[in-house]
Amino acid sequence: MKFDIFTLFPEVFQPYIDASIIKRARQNGLVEICLHNIRDWAFDRHHTTDDTPYGGGGGMVMKPDPVFSCVEDVLGSDFSIPLILMTPQGRPFTQQVAKELSDFPHIALLCGHYEGVDERIREHLVTDEISIGDYVLTGGELPALVILDAVSRYIPGVLGDPTGAEDDSHASGLLEYPHYTRPPIFRGWSVPDVLLSGNHAEINKWRHEQSIQRTAKKRPDILEKYKKEHIE
Amino acid sequence: MKFDIFTLFPEVFQPYIDASIIKRARQNGLVEICLHNIRDWAFDRHHTTDDTPYGGGGGMVMKPDPVFSCVEDVLGSDFSIPLILMTPQGRPFTQQVAKELSDFPHIALLCGHYEGVDERIREHLVTDEISIGDYVLTGGELPALVILDAVSRYIPGVLGDPTGAEDDSHASGLLEYPHYTRPPIFRGWSVPDVLLSGNHAEINKWRHEQSIQRTAKKRPDILEKYKKEHIE
Repeated sequence: MKFDIFTLFPEVFQPYIDASIIKRARQNGLVEICLHNIRDWAFDRHHTTDDTPYGGGGGMVMKPDPVFSCVEDVLGSDFSIPLILMTPQGRPFTQQVAKELSDFPHIALLCGHYEGVDERIREHLVTDEISIGDYVLTGGELPALVILDAVSRYIPGVLGDPTGAEDDSHASGLLEYPHYTRPPIFRGWSVPDVLLSGNHAEINKWRHEQSIQRTAKKRPDILEKYKKEHIE
Repeated sequence: MKFDIFTLFPEVFQPYIDASIIKRARQNGLVEICLHNIRDWAFDRHHTTDDTPYGGGGGMVMKPDPVFSCVEDVLGSDFSIPLILMTPQGRPFTQQVAKELSDFPHIALLCGHYEGVDERIREHLVTDEISIGDYVLTGGELPALVILDAVSRYIPGVLGDPTGAEDDSHASGLLEYPHYTRPPIFRGWSVPDVLLSGNHAEINKWRHEQSIQRTAKKRPDILEKYKKEHIE
């Protein structure tokens, strides 16, 4: 799967895509990531990419011209590639959206910065808008990394364990059960007996109950949805 | 404000905290960020920080010992510092939570990795658990950066414009109005006349209406909440 990322801060991405599972996925040819610095398409003397907003107010706005030029140069006329603007105004990113995006062979992520992007970028260039949560960040760089990471986990072969992505919190529709590893007693706190029993039916039952209890306590909204999908 | 960050991948943080507003905030002494590599507190020969889960299943679990030792060495016995585990099972991070955390002079963020952390870390060490959204990531590094960024924006002096953080999407309780910058006509698409009018009362009215319309269309859930808080 190929990711084109349009940003003013390509240097922010490098260590993350050189670490952990993304690194391995790139080395194994499962994921290709191309970073494009929007500033390279700002052709005035100072390579200006932002300007003050019409109508006044604080902050700077990303100019339309460098963004249009950069995206058009890189993606050409292939309109089948989703071009997704990272913005707190977008549709909420969820595990379901991650899975949906992983079906595309190629997606492009556009990182806004400063106060936001000129509205004409939103209206006439991007094909989708995604928000990773109801909070405000300085730019779209962290959201792009979040999407890159969550989507990559669905690409076959990226996780060592082929069922890995399905097991996690949210993938099953419930929060995950508790995990324990050695030592069996740490500072007087023991691992639950059932996990040491070797009885896999009992272990699975305990884990499912724990998932349900935990979801009920911490995220009743998620449990409601789960019940609707699995019981009704 | 001081941030202690506990992670297995400190190198992932560096370029982000050396860029943009976080860089300036650090240079101006408004934000102090200390990265701690949990692996430095794994004292066996191979500096092992993870192990297989009791009860079987895919993935590795972060061992309790290195995490307890690392956190206790760094934070000492100051139990007034919130120690927040980044986990998809935590309470949802929102702009409100960002504001709430910015009132602390010092917080600590613990990044899980792999399949998760040993449950005893959750039960006996951390004081809070936060999720940045309903999706699964490889580790807590991106969530920690998200929290660092969103919280820092509330620290007085971090944003150039003192009202900046209040104006953004979600801070006001509504999605943000459209932004435009030069040129006034780009590829035939014009900036709305009102923004060029110089009439600030009209501009503010237009922007507020746009915010309401946009929120109604894209996030009716947020508009409901806004109405409850502002009208009832």
